[in-house]
Amino acid sequence: MASSEANERPRLISAMELVGAGGYDKLQIKKIPYREPNSDEVVIRVKFAGLNFADLMRRQGLYSPAPKFPYVPGFEASGVVEAIGSNVSQLAVGDRVVAFAGDGMWADLVTLSNDRCFKMPDNMSFEDGAALLVNYITAYHILFEFGNLRPNKSVLIHMAAGGVGIAAIQLCKTVKNVTVFGTASGSKHNIIKEAGCTHPIDYHTEDYVAEIRKISPNGIDIIMDPLNGEDSVRGYNLLKPLGRIIYFGAANVAASGENRSLFTAFKTWYKCFSTNSLSILSDNKSIAGYHLGYLLKYFDSGKEIALETIDELFRLYNEGAIKPQIDSIYPLSKVGEAMQRMHNRQNIGKILLQPDDEANATKNNDTTTE
Amino acid sequence: MASSEANERPRLISAMELVGAGGYDKLQIKKIPYREPNSDEVVIRVKFAGLNFADLMRRQGLYSPAPKFPYVPGFEASGVVEAIGSNVSQLAVGDRVVAFAGDGMWADLVTLSNDRCFKMPDNMSFEDGAALLVNYITAYHILFEFGNLRPNKSVLIHMAAGGVGIAAIQLCKTVKNVTVFGTASGSKHNIIKEAGCTHPIDYHTEDYVAEIRKISPNGIDIIMDPLNGEDSVRGYNLLKPLGRIIYFGAANVAASGENRSLFTAFKTWYKCFSTNSLSILSDNKSIAGYHLGYLLKYFDSGKEIALETIDELFRLYNEGAIKPQIDSIYPLSKVGEAMQRMHNRQNIGKILLQPDDEANATKNNDTTTE
Repeated sequence: MASSEANERPRLISAMELVGAGGYDKLQIKKIPYREPNSDEVVIRVKFAGLNFADLMRRQGLYSPAPKFPYVPGFEASGVVEAIGSNVSQLAVGDRVVAFAGDGMWADLVTLSNDRCFKMPDNMSFEDGAALLVNYITAYHILFEFGNLRPNKSVLIHMAAGGVGIAAIQLCKTVKNVTVFGTASGSKHNIIKEAGCTHPIDYHTEDYVAEIRKISPNGIDIIMDPLNGEDSVRGYNLLKPLGRIIYFGAANVAASGENRSLFTAFKTWYKCFSTNSLSILSDNKSIAGYHLGYLLKYFDSGKEIALETIDELFRLYNEGAIKPQIDSIYPLSKVGEAMQRMHNRQNIGKILLQPDDEANATKNNDTTTE
Repeated sequence: MASSEANERPRLISAMELVGAGGYDKLQIKKIPYREPNSDEVVIRVKFAGLNFADLMRRQGLYSPAPKFPYVPGFEASGVVEAIGSNVSQLAVGDRVVAFAGDGMWADLVTLSNDRCFKMPDNMSFEDGAALLVNYITAYHILFEFGNLRPNKSVLIHMAAGGVGIAAIQLCKTVKNVTVFGTASGSKHNIIKEAGCTHPIDYHTEDYVAEIRKISPNGIDIIMDPLNGEDSVRGYNLLKPLGRIIYFGAANVAASGENRSLFTAFKTWYKCFSTNSLSILSDNKSIAGYHLGYLLKYFDSGKEIALETIDELFRLYNEGAIKPQIDSIYPLSKVGEAMQRMHNRQNIGKILLQPDDEANATKNNDTTTE
């Protein structure tokens, strides 16, 4: 589009908007105005964006922080820098970057602060870049900050075949002699075993607590719990002395249907683990809450922690120690289907979204010889 | 005493008994029967025993686990092996040892399981040995297990001039560039500064939260809280993102008088920090409870953790990285005075107790030229 034309009518971009809390019909592709970068911002042409469980929770109206409706969701993306503000020096047009923010990534062009964008390692694909940030930062902070993972420890990973789950398994394998228990349905056990899970457990057919006690009678050192509700109590009780459980979600709150269920939410709340500074005294255990969204949104020092972690993750990627498992790629317009796949826990690893123009271009490139 | 005489009437030892919950009059020196070691036990002639805040809580009836009255308190001691059971091979008569157990150390002879006794490094004094185990294991587990202390972190240590406090300061200094905030009354600031405390704060004249915010506006990475009650909430709120607070006592519960105050206890409970697995989710913080007594009493793996830690502490002692600060030594018969000193928070470092015969012998050695 010539710039003379752009001056006559506002330039529009394609974006997926969440227009309210509810079912998949609340997600609508819209044409919205392009926003020029201010002096500290950059514009990225999105190659791929990540789908996260938090996006499903937000759609059901069960997740904060969230902007007011309507807004463009999307925490993370990979892409190419298309324009930069006058103050931006560490990025240039044409740079391949990954980016993350509180929202806004499900669009073909994204205008955002330059400090949310990071140059990708040269050998990283756009798919891997879009799959890396949220899942691996989450798993890294849980395992190495709160979890204090060191050699010879045992770790329980719920939803082990999901994006965070596979990231966590791979990160566990960077430490000597870590025993990884992972829950996933039986059909996914081969994949999580290949990733490094020592003991896959099918939560459909087995009681994970009983199975773990058979192998490790004293319990587990570190538990990653994205489920909450009654699992939060079962996990706490399963901890070894000096063990740590890190709550980082409430998947049990999310209704399996399209809309939220207040009954499911209430049951999760009612059954969740409660304690206080006196009653925890004699337990020799630790609980933690982890939430990447709040970490970045409300704390200046949250950003610093994330920056250090991204450096470390790029290093591990370059060494071949970690590699995102991509489950599937959907065009943005099919985000409902992508969400249903995640809700049904059919995915193995990361689900990516692709702007429809990019998806069509990829298709055309596949079928033409130009 | 000749052994022929011992055969005629039971051999008696001197011990300090706690005969009930209450004031100092509940602590009484008694002659109790000597117990021969069974095949796995050893007998130690006690040189020094440690006094811990938990002993004060127990006397007030505020601490569990505790045996039934009457019993001989005392968690730790140093001494010399005087007899061994038939199965004991790793210790010999004459060995210099440190020992710890759930109770029983406040006596001139102690019969206990050999696996609670550890040969002291050759260059360790009996005073240092008796001052080491409870305080340094506690500080070590809190800082390095739950706290995940690493370079460039900040630590808040309450009661920084106490036994655990000084141990913790010294352990912080074994890690690069750790900023240590310590609360203690002004008269003790020189000592804790010498030990390595970066910012001593006088809790009598200053609001520690306000003082810390002035220096470190984002808060603290690791807080060691032996106070509980309203301090448990203030500490939680003072944590940085991904910060950790470890509760390991409830000094605020202990009445400053001789007897427990139910009002003080209730106030501490009422004001203590409460959370659950859902409300902690968005906080990006961790809470932990630490209790060495339960760690050793109820968990097989607790012992293993302690053994590894003792090895590490002996190594640090031999390197000169840690060295117990001995506040004072009281004869066992004056334990009430020793407790009052601790209750008034007059001590700087560890208070030790010495069996009266040993104390008298020391005195005689000091005044004779034999």
